[in-house]
Amino acid sequence: MRKDYLLAPGPTPVPSRVLLAMAQPVIHHRTPQFSKVFEEAATLLKHVFQTEEDVLILASSGTGAMESAVTNLFSPGDEVVVVNSGKFGERWGQIAESYGLKVHWINVEWGRAVDPAVVKEVMDNNPDTKGILCQASETSTTVQHPVRELAQLTKDHDAIIVVDGITAVGVMDIPMDEWGIDVLVSGSQKAFMLPPGLAFIALSKKAWEFAERAGCPRYYFDLKKERKNLAKQTTAYTPAVSLITGLREALLMIKEEGLENVFKRHEVLARAARQSMKALGLKLLAPESPSLAATGVYLPEEVDGAKFVKYLRDTMGVTVAGGQDKLKGKIFRIAHLGYIDTFDMITAVSAVEMGLSLFGYNVDMGRGVAEAERILLERYKKP
Amino acid sequence: MRKDYLLAPGPTPVPSRVLLAMAQPVIHHRTPQFSKVFEEAATLLKHVFQTEEDVLILASSGTGAMESAVTNLFSPGDEVVVVNSGKFGERWGQIAESYGLKVHWINVEWGRAVDPAVVKEVMDNNPDTKGILCQASETSTTVQHPVRELAQLTKDHDAIIVVDGITAVGVMDIPMDEWGIDVLVSGSQKAFMLPPGLAFIALSKKAWEFAERAGCPRYYFDLKKERKNLAKQTTAYTPAVSLITGLREALLMIKEEGLENVFKRHEVLARAARQSMKALGLKLLAPESPSLAATGVYLPEEVDGAKFVKYLRDTMGVTVAGGQDKLKGKIFRIAHLGYIDTFDMITAVSAVEMGLSLFGYNVDMGRGVAEAERILLERYKKP
Repeated sequence: MRKDYLLAPGPTPVPSRVLLAMAQPVIHHRTPQFSKVFEEAATLLKHVFQTEEDVLILASSGTGAMESAVTNLFSPGDEVVVVNSGKFGERWGQIAESYGLKVHWINVEWGRAVDPAVVKEVMDNNPDTKGILCQASETSTTVQHPVRELAQLTKDHDAIIVVDGITAVGVMDIPMDEWGIDVLVSGSQKAFMLPPGLAFIALSKKAWEFAERAGCPRYYFDLKKERKNLAKQTTAYTPAVSLITGLREALLMIKEEGLENVFKRHEVLARAARQSMKALGLKLLAPESPSLAATGVYLPEEVDGAKFVKYLRDTMGVTVAGGQDKLKGKIFRIAHLGYIDTFDMITAVSAVEMGLSLFGYNVDMGRGVAEAERILLERYKKP
Repeated sequence: MRKDYLLAPGPTPVPSRVLLAMAQPVIHHRTPQFSKVFEEAATLLKHVFQTEEDVLILASSGTGAMESAVTNLFSPGDEVVVVNSGKFGERWGQIAESYGLKVHWINVEWGRAVDPAVVKEVMDNNPDTKGILCQASETSTTVQHPVRELAQLTKDHDAIIVVDGITAVGVMDIPMDEWGIDVLVSGSQKAFMLPPGLAFIALSKKAWEFAERAGCPRYYFDLKKERKNLAKQTTAYTPAVSLITGLREALLMIKEEGLENVFKRHEVLARAARQSMKALGLKLLAPESPSLAATGVYLPEEVDGAKFVKYLRDTMGVTVAGGQDKLKGKIFRIAHLGYIDTFDMITAVSAVEMGLSLFGYNVDMGRGVAEAERILLERYKKP
């Protein structure tokens, strides 16, 4: 008998309340009944995105929304700066190049955040640059980028900042309107506590102007068409009805907890993960600018990372993520975004302690958990 | 946001697989479709009870099956010995007296197991005694009684041994036929991983002979009538259809895990609970003959037990049980029966560490978890 714990940076655990909402009989999408659910979800989404603009709901993974940003905002031949600090930064560039954009790659060492001064220099050297494409949280390297500073760089230029907030929105405070973010993208299976299948995208007024002149080919991901449909409480193509019913419920849960409390919870969980791993003598992948969504940890050299992650998942029931590409076999990533609380972190840290011990590493058993407990105590008022 | 963890000695957590089985549309109970499910469940139950006899399924709580044992096996005026070592031993006596039986009470200090020599002496002094009523696991004091030895005492007498196995069957090895247990009772919300609502009872051949001459009044709980109906793959009165559908699924899970493995898992979990609490300097309620179902722990004197249990449940989301009657406010009980695995125990121990710290007790944080981890490692093969 083995219970399973989902502690990877997406999909994340789905609360029973959301599962039950999604288990309701499917209703037809061209009805007032569905429109009511859809409108509520869309309105609640604006609160989490911290924007007055429309947040469009797409039936796709997050990558679909990333593609929609490129095709709806730019034209073939347009120059864009891509912050490439990991798998998902690389993806921005691949999408852009697929549509014939000219990419100025800024390659950042994995595990580090981009330096805004470097981005400014590339922008200055390439004055026709139409956009900066970057991640708020680069999931593959568990790094947080200085999005607020990057947004400043496009302010007085004919350029927009396009942010992949897939593991950032609903995790960290990233106020779209206040920071002047032009495009913000997210996905359902992260902080939104839903199964995969929905993506979200919001555009600033400046971005909608870009959309008027963008010349990339597109059909399914036509944001202007989606915006027109949203005004009529519907979508251009068949929406994922049950997921949107679940989205409404999950957004109500976020509203009830309070966005500030959601951010605070993620901050404490992330700190507990980081400090507990350091207490075990392990090295963090992104010590300087860590993401609040997940914590990347280097394994001791004697431990085979691929085997370790597989063992935790298949034998102990604890799914953490391994490393991607050049980090394969070298790190593991503990996620702490979405429907995660105190004892999920205790479970993760305990599984790492027990797992490392089983792999022959000399672990000071309980030391990581003790450190996590000390930090997680901040979540509770004294009786 | 608070996730809830059910770690009380019943109800226990219900696996998703069982919940999904119970969520199927209700079928009619006088149909071949239901009879098939019912027969499978009844057959699988015999395996867990380790008996060749019928195991009857009642729509009631465990107390209903306890009452059915008294009314179907004895007559007013019959003498019975009751092992009273806690709330549930006391209940045997109360039921017996409600039906006019003459009870020889054996009062055992709470937290201790009964001495078979004492029971033998009472039997010898009262040669007309028709039965011994006892618990295999006394849930209120987390004690395990020497049922095998007690069963010997009725072997060559016109007496039967009636065992409340509500928190023992499916937890510890209690082979009904091999040990000569005449009546064995259990309930759905314990090791059977179901919601409350079903009770189970099996009778030995000797017990069925007792049932022929028993004169207590009864109607709903008529075991002879239930046995006749069981032979026709049904029940005398409307069965709890969805619970029985869930029962079949839960019993398949037990069969897949293997009864031996189920017992071994409970033994390791129970030992981890006990040793971790001792590592924190806490005193066990039943150190000498502990139950594998739950571990009772004395709180430090400066901690108010009622407040502590309430705090863990309402603030931290961890439901453990408090003390009953004279133990109220003095102890807490961590359950480890049913759908419980490694990280449930880690969660329980961590919650106790954090909770005690919040209540001002000087806890060596992580020490209990470390001890639990060392024991729980036995569950895993080295990679």
